[in-house]
Amino acid sequence: MAEAKVLSGAGLRGQIAGETALCTVGKEGAGLTYRGYDVRELAANSDFEEVAYLLFHGELPNRRQLAAYQQKLKSKRDLPVALKEVLERIPADAHPMDVMRTGASVLGTLEPEHSFEQQREVAERLLAVFPAILCYWYRFTHDGVRIECTSDEDTIGGHFLHLLHGKAPSELHRKVMNVSLILYAEHEFNASTFTGRVCASTLSDLYSCVTGSIGSLRGPLHGGANEAAMELIERFSSPQEAVSELLAMIERKDKIMGFGHAIYRESDPRNEVIKQWAKKLAEEAGDSVLYPVSEAIDKTMWEQKKLFPNADFYHASAYHFMGIPTKLFTPIFVCSRVTGWTAHVFEQRANNRIIRPSADYIGVEQRAVPEIDKR
Amino acid sequence: MAEAKVLSGAGLRGQIAGETALCTVGKEGAGLTYRGYDVRELAANSDFEEVAYLLFHGELPNRRQLAAYQQKLKSKRDLPVALKEVLERIPADAHPMDVMRTGASVLGTLEPEHSFEQQREVAERLLAVFPAILCYWYRFTHDGVRIECTSDEDTIGGHFLHLLHGKAPSELHRKVMNVSLILYAEHEFNASTFTGRVCASTLSDLYSCVTGSIGSLRGPLHGGANEAAMELIERFSSPQEAVSELLAMIERKDKIMGFGHAIYRESDPRNEVIKQWAKKLAEEAGDSVLYPVSEAIDKTMWEQKKLFPNADFYHASAYHFMGIPTKLFTPIFVCSRVTGWTAHVFEQRANNRIIRPSADYIGVEQRAVPEIDKR
Repeated sequence: MAEAKVLSGAGLRGQIAGETALCTVGKEGAGLTYRGYDVRELAANSDFEEVAYLLFHGELPNRRQLAAYQQKLKSKRDLPVALKEVLERIPADAHPMDVMRTGASVLGTLEPEHSFEQQREVAERLLAVFPAILCYWYRFTHDGVRIECTSDEDTIGGHFLHLLHGKAPSELHRKVMNVSLILYAEHEFNASTFTGRVCASTLSDLYSCVTGSIGSLRGPLHGGANEAAMELIERFSSPQEAVSELLAMIERKDKIMGFGHAIYRESDPRNEVIKQWAKKLAEEAGDSVLYPVSEAIDKTMWEQKKLFPNADFYHASAYHFMGIPTKLFTPIFVCSRVTGWTAHVFEQRANNRIIRPSADYIGVEQRAVPEIDKR
Repeated sequence: MAEAKVLSGAGLRGQIAGETALCTVGKEGAGLTYRGYDVRELAANSDFEEVAYLLFHGELPNRRQLAAYQQKLKSKRDLPVALKEVLERIPADAHPMDVMRTGASVLGTLEPEHSFEQQREVAERLLAVFPAILCYWYRFTHDGVRIECTSDEDTIGGHFLHLLHGKAPSELHRKVMNVSLILYAEHEFNASTFTGRVCASTLSDLYSCVTGSIGSLRGPLHGGANEAAMELIERFSSPQEAVSELLAMIERKDKIMGFGHAIYRESDPRNEVIKQWAKKLAEEAGDSVLYPVSEAIDKTMWEQKKLFPNADFYHASAYHFMGIPTKLFTPIFVCSRVTGWTAHVFEQRANNRIIRPSADYIGVEQRAVPEIDKR
């Protein structure tokens, strides 16, 4: 066995584990770029489908290409009957991320990726189908209805809201979902993406990679911070109450979700974008509690701890104003990040070596097996 | 962002990515140890359930503990009705590893791990239930029967063969399945185990970790070598034909599966064990082709390439002599390795930091988003 090198820290932190052309995170002057484009600029001017196309194809589509791409994705939204029957058998109190993970896995048995030449088709299928997987299960188990899984919505964001609420969303809501999906699309070698790349490195199929990524995103140290932020925000009925309770939480050293970041040091570039949209939604909704409470928490965290809100914090109120149940927040992350995950799998496949690190052995010395009657 | 270190090789080869007390691989004087015990010694004298207990609890059970443990596992073998209904909806031509992945994921929606205090219970449930997941689907889709998912067999190996064939296996077959499950139980930071540890590092649930591991084991660079070995061996009707065809394959630089290993340099300690059992099975079966062909391939690979058979090569004929269809070989690996996977998750959880490496950016420089009509 080759001499193993000890890494400087646990969790492979700061260690290069591969190459990517998809994304930079925390580089000076640009907080987050997708294929060279600042995510703030993409969120201001583009549809999420443009970003998906960019991640998969390397360049932004022109108007004709975008229209064709949206049309193509639209045609891939419906669920196979067998998948609907499976979703109907998942209990209402199941973790919605387990529903997403199972939906991806089942689809892999029904529409397998027979060859890597199909990889883009499979990625598009997953991208198109996740809103229906989530909403079909949710509406069936919570409202007792079997929804249509298609809609006339041109965008994935609009389509998701349409399926969830059973009616066309407002232009503002369409826009905000679109922005949100762009902000969450890609983030370098985060744990769920790295899970997918390890899986891809065995030359496994794309469904296995995405199923694995969903399982990792499910963990509370990764996805789910926006859900935790919502639970925090909802506890308070006024900014004053929020401040005094928050000070007590800080005093008790409680973990407060939605602030700070493993890689960003001064601010999360995605926050300034979603924060302004959360504010617009609050105004539209005539809200006088949730957004002011959010701002009070934000201000207090900065004053007390010099911690900034990350992408998740204002996503909580934004999603809430669009009528999205809190427990569906992390699955929306899947609907977006599936673009980054699958683009990373394409990269791993194009220049692959199986990812197989070594371990530092800290166990007992070698010993002889005692006979069972002498134990 | 912290300064990133460039690793010496791709695939994190030879890099320490964490600690383990479970296993050593390729250490001098002992090819493979589980918690300090040589795998060859365990395979000679122990039941697979002893090894499962060893991996989970740290020590081998005494006679009383083993009996109680086998009884406990026996009581956890049956499938929930909803899981059976899902398995019936997976097509007969699905990849059997997709069935295992989906079975684990669905079970996670039906019997979730609510807290890490349940982790050993969940691991035991998965260990007990995988043979039924595989055989229920296989027999339903291939033979049109809904099998009983329980049996009187005391061991998992016997239980698997009983469900597959619908009758009690011979003592020899029980013994060989037991040995096989021991040999495949654990192998340090291989790609599927590392996938599970990355998932665990987000503090996700055990079903997500195992689902991710199955997806990685599915890849042809990882699991599946015994299936490929079987396909090779079956092509030849005599040792003479095998040798002449193999020489042609070597000449053409065809990939020949079941030989050599990423970590072992001189031999795979698991090979000497399974080879002797494959020979016994051949004698019992009165075989005069498959085993002699296997030996001829083995000898030729050594003479021509100085490559030794790994754990997978003689597993192919051993499984074949027990009437196991080739496409079920890799899923049996799951029935065994779930012990190592889950034991690694317990370790990761006990001393966790989220596994989040960095990437070397090789993409385009930062650029402005062009208006859509100027693309």
